[in-house]
Amino acid sequence: MAENGNRGLDNIGEEEEEEEEGSVERVFMKQEVPPWRKQVTLRALAVSFVLSVLFSFIVMKLNLTTGIIPSLNVSAGLLGFFFVKSWSKLLEKSGMLKQTFTRQENTVIQTCVVASSGIAFSGGFGGYLFGMSERVAKQASDKSDFKNPALGWIIGFLFVVSFLGLFSVVPLRKIMIIDFKLTYPSGTATAHLINSFHTPQGAKLAKKQVKALGKFFTLSFSWAFFQWFYTATDQCGFQAFPSLGLKAYNYRFFFDFSAIYIGVGMICPYIINISLLLGGILSWGVMWPLLEKKEGHWYPPNLTDTDLNGLQGYKVFIAIALILGDGLYNLLKVLGFTLIGLYNQIQTKQRESVLPVADQNPSSTTQTQLSNDDRRRIESFLKDQIPTYFAVGGYVAISAVSIVTLPHIFPQLKWYYILVIYLIAPSLAFCNAYGAGLTDWSLASGYGKLAIFTIGAWAGASHGGVLAGLAACGVMMNIVSTASDLMQDFKTGYLTLSSPRSMFVSQVIGTTMGCVIAPCVFWIFYKAFDDLGTPTSEYPAPYAIMYRNMAELGVEGFSSLPRHCLLLCYVFFGSAIVINLVKDLVGKKRGWFIPLPMAMAIPFYIGPYFAIDMCVGSLILFVWERINKAKADDFGPAVASGLICGDGIWTLPASILALAGVNPPICMKFLSRTTNSRVDAFLGS
Amino acid sequence: MAENGNRGLDNIGEEEEEEEEGSVERVFMKQEVPPWRKQVTLRALAVSFVLSVLFSFIVMKLNLTTGIIPSLNVSAGLLGFFFVKSWSKLLEKSGMLKQTFTRQENTVIQTCVVASSGIAFSGGFGGYLFGMSERVAKQASDKSDFKNPALGWIIGFLFVVSFLGLFSVVPLRKIMIIDFKLTYPSGTATAHLINSFHTPQGAKLAKKQVKALGKFFTLSFSWAFFQWFYTATDQCGFQAFPSLGLKAYNYRFFFDFSAIYIGVGMICPYIINISLLLGGILSWGVMWPLLEKKEGHWYPPNLTDTDLNGLQGYKVFIAIALILGDGLYNLLKVLGFTLIGLYNQIQTKQRESVLPVADQNPSSTTQTQLSNDDRRRIESFLKDQIPTYFAVGGYVAISAVSIVTLPHIFPQLKWYYILVIYLIAPSLAFCNAYGAGLTDWSLASGYGKLAIFTIGAWAGASHGGVLAGLAACGVMMNIVSTASDLMQDFKTGYLTLSSPRSMFVSQVIGTTMGCVIAPCVFWIFYKAFDDLGTPTSEYPAPYAIMYRNMAELGVEGFSSLPRHCLLLCYVFFGSAIVINLVKDLVGKKRGWFIPLPMAMAIPFYIGPYFAIDMCVGSLILFVWERINKAKADDFGPAVASGLICGDGIWTLPASILALAGVNPPICMKFLSRTTNSRVDAFLGS
Repeated sequence: MAENGNRGLDNIGEEEEEEEEGSVERVFMKQEVPPWRKQVTLRALAVSFVLSVLFSFIVMKLNLTTGIIPSLNVSAGLLGFFFVKSWSKLLEKSGMLKQTFTRQENTVIQTCVVASSGIAFSGGFGGYLFGMSERVAKQASDKSDFKNPALGWIIGFLFVVSFLGLFSVVPLRKIMIIDFKLTYPSGTATAHLINSFHTPQGAKLAKKQVKALGKFFTLSFSWAFFQWFYTATDQCGFQAFPSLGLKAYNYRFFFDFSAIYIGVGMICPYIINISLLLGGILSWGVMWPLLEKKEGHWYPPNLTDTDLNGLQGYKVFIAIALILGDGLYNLLKVLGFTLIGLYNQIQTKQRESVLPVADQNPSSTTQTQLSNDDRRRIESFLKDQIPTYFAVGGYVAISAVSIVTLPHIFPQLKWYYILVIYLIAPSLAFCNAYGAGLTDWSLASGYGKLAIFTIGAWAGASHGGVLAGLAACGVMMNIVSTASDLMQDFKTGYLTLSSPRSMFVSQVIGTTMGCVIAPCVFWIFYKAFDDLGTPTSEYPAPYAIMYRNMAELGVEGFSSLPRHCLLLCYVFFGSAIVINLVKDLVGKKRGWFIPLPMAMAIPFYIGPYFAIDMCVGSLILFVWERINKAKADDFGPAVASGLICGDGIWTLPASILALAGVNPPICMKFLSRTTNSRVDAFLGS
Repeated sequence: MAENGNRGLDNIGEEEEEEEEGSVERVFMKQEVPPWRKQVTLRALAVSFVLSVLFSFIVMKLNLTTGIIPSLNVSAGLLGFFFVKSWSKLLEKSGMLKQTFTRQENTVIQTCVVASSGIAFSGGFGGYLFGMSERVAKQASDKSDFKNPALGWIIGFLFVVSFLGLFSVVPLRKIMIIDFKLTYPSGTATAHLINSFHTPQGAKLAKKQVKALGKFFTLSFSWAFFQWFYTATDQCGFQAFPSLGLKAYNYRFFFDFSAIYIGVGMICPYIINISLLLGGILSWGVMWPLLEKKEGHWYPPNLTDTDLNGLQGYKVFIAIALILGDGLYNLLKVLGFTLIGLYNQIQTKQRESVLPVADQNPSSTTQTQLSNDDRRRIESFLKDQIPTYFAVGGYVAISAVSIVTLPHIFPQLKWYYILVIYLIAPSLAFCNAYGAGLTDWSLASGYGKLAIFTIGAWAGASHGGVLAGLAACGVMMNIVSTASDLMQDFKTGYLTLSSPRSMFVSQVIGTTMGCVIAPCVFWIFYKAFDDLGTPTSEYPAPYAIMYRNMAELGVEGFSSLPRHCLLLCYVFFGSAIVINLVKDLVGKKRGWFIPLPMAMAIPFYIGPYFAIDMCVGSLILFVWERINKAKADDFGPAVASGLICGDGIWTLPASILALAGVNPPICMKFLSRTTNSRVDAFLGS
């Protein structure tokens, strides 16, 4: 989920760690590792650019519809492999091929794409950044202060904040990867994927997977294209299909035939999909219908749907309570793990420093007998160094630029707020990178929320605390998010013998691409879909309103909440913590059925319809696994990627059509029997 | 197609004749053939009854929607096998099983079901019989004379006419099957199917096929059920889905997501589906749009849609011209074959009668060296005789009853018309049975049309010639249709060692069932769907209006046709003959791409939408055959049967719901963008 960064969901890869050591690098013995300048090739960057645009569209669509973003690593890996392979084949035929496609090059593409599409998430287009806009402000309680999105300042903002994360953790890469031997499950899984692509039988499977991906890509794209014709307005077409009846539809229980969320459901673990559905049933199935009956008692009657003093207030603030409860618990938990882990590491280090390095104690937990693979990897990893003065210098220089520039973009964000953030940020970035290494859980949005509340409260309501908080959230999220992403990529690079320098360069290039591509993609959406950000539209951007309201809570406190809402918020905040605690105490195995409060929160606001799509995806995968487990494991992620990419990329032509003023010709409308006869009479006359 | 009887379409089975002789009966050597009374068991009749109801619904739905009825033999065979097998298994477990399931019993079920559901076709519920009704008369030019359907007289009518065919050809069975060795492709294919079910490996395949059928039955039924909810009126739901755009929809080009016609398309040969589509494109894509522009010139403007003086006249009469041209050509062709075949047979007979029977000439074409199989079959076939006096006596007795009764039902049908029909009928029944044996082509509706024109003209307009013609058509069709059906069944019985007596008895029982079930099923449709028979409704019953207009043409001549319509009719009548002639001259192999005029005619009236469904079915089968030919051949018919049966049987609950006044709750409506904003404004205010 977005809340946990776009790495958050692939705990799936967690199991397949480095078990099969000793055999991996033997396969690649004959392959020479190219120097780092040959790893960052022109074709790799060209392919990265194409994929970055593709994934930015997909991430943006997910951002603006539900905010749930699954790990797109497998798709990026497969598509990158497919593009370069096709390209190489084409050049080979024309006799112009100069260089074979290596796994290092593949890693560079992967890194570049992840960095670039990561900006589409951490840029906050579906969150803090769009939460500043007038459109979202109108739905919030404090409508006075807003800053509408504009291409210029967004690109500028991203450029001055997105590179800090990179520089802040680069010096620590040896400690994290080699000394601490952190797992980084996502990075490890990606490395295994890339390594497998470049073995002969892996390449064969990859080809089949690409074929499956292509088939479902086409299917999903065509289906989205077909749907488009019937979507004259938001209330038309398959997205408004009352597949469970009109009454259920009014409470947003319906299957909306969206291929992208079926795919997302296939990638996300079952428990996330079930949590989403449970959250949907609890909120739209039980609580909101009950609260509707309190109209006139608990809150004034006849309010507009988006008025936070009415039902909407309960929806938004209870969701925020759940998210904050879950976020706080996990922040503390991961910080705890980080501190304990660090303490152990330092203890071991101290013991080691007592012994001479030559005869290390074989029972030591960190640097025991090195396998052949490890030796090769470490050697390769330490070859190309990035000097520490370069990293520190970079950080200071960019910080200085940032401190000067940001107050011009956001007058509410004083220069000393930024200075404080930049003083604290490196340690938080380190914490996040370390935590992600241990648990795969990026807490970027958690640190972002911390910034909202602290800076917001510091600025205060009269000095534009809401906007200051949101902007601070952006600064903080970008730093800590890129820090953990980069470290994941270093791990991938370590396992694929890619040079850290090429990793760093491709991350810088990827981030640069992202700083331009992501705002442009957002701009297309913003201009193409007029109702972006309104709750019942195709693109409700649920987190935008949530972030906005969090900022207002931080600044103004709980005064504006409707009756009993605060009590309910306390209950849900507490429940989130208790549920997490119970889940952790019971253990992963026995507590698999305990839902995740964070996932439950999202349908509270936008309704359970996408959860139904995702459960359909789960169901498909479940049945498939029952019928043919091996095939489902091999091709499930490829099929899901195809579904996600096809539907996701359709938004590109869809938004171009919308920008060009070409509107869908037909409305597929769903009317109740009685309304239909009224309409027929009206049309007949 | 209905026009060729419901056996007409399975030329598909034609290839698999008795090639593998000598091996079939060896497999069954150990199985004793039960006496005929043990072949017609109670459980067989019970299963037959259930299946008869099922297939009557399916045939009736097809009758009333397009009139295209594929061969349902495979479905009947599979389902019969499935029901009795499950029944036997159940009894076996409870220890009550007295008799194993034999192929003779299976043949009895098959025969009984075909006889019974045959009445649903030859009863003319979508043709001559419904053509008599007031509702259809209103759409025709002569509105004065009509007879509305009523359960009582329909059952009575069917009882007095349906048994004559049986008695008229029973005495000839030995000549047709043993002496003439006629092929009866459908009967042979059915026998092979039944034989295969009762071999061990055949039973295994059959079980898998039944499973596939069941899966697609469920799918198709659920899909039809789901569709129902969105069909508040005829212009709602998936059946009105403008899947190719609104403009194409207005000319009835759309894919309507109907599983039944996808299934029908999978069973019908490719050329039929392509002919249907070609006919649709020629008529609704080219001719009708052109003719629409002649409004006010060729025909008066502002007529209602169903007025035969306008565009509707061209649609109906050009379709009739095509049907009559094709029908006449095939009637003459099959009659020619019949006469030549008979002449050859008699020649051979005469030569044989000269030689003593003991030392037959080995080069003789008819009774050459008998294989073991043939010897066993002939022996079995000749064991249980049906005395000729019984057959002749039955025919005379039923004729007498019929001549007395029918004028009471139709006062326009004088007793001497009926007498004449009954004098000629046996020879026509023989011709049809013989022709079907050679070509698998039942020309029942061709003979029916002959009766319409001759009796209609004889009676004349002033004496109710229209109704007399339609009634005469019914009498004639029932006789010749059951005659060829029965002979097909005798062939099946011959090849499965079933007793002719059990065949005859099950045919009598099946016909009796049909005479009651078919009218009742029609009655349910008639009462449940108010707009049955109107051109744009869900059940347009296209042949009803065609038969009505043929009768009027026969009585009144061409005076009422709109301008240039007669000329167009001549052109299409001629083209039908020329196309058929060219197809026959070029040969089946090289002329496979030449369309069938009969198939082209149907979309002329009701539009090409069902042709698009059927082509989708063809496409699915085509792709399937490309991917896995063996699997497609084994499971294609089972999947198609599942699709047909599921959607077909859904009409039972659908009509019960309609009768109970339960209407679908939602209308899925398709509006153009502009209309939609008008409707939104209307609903908003």
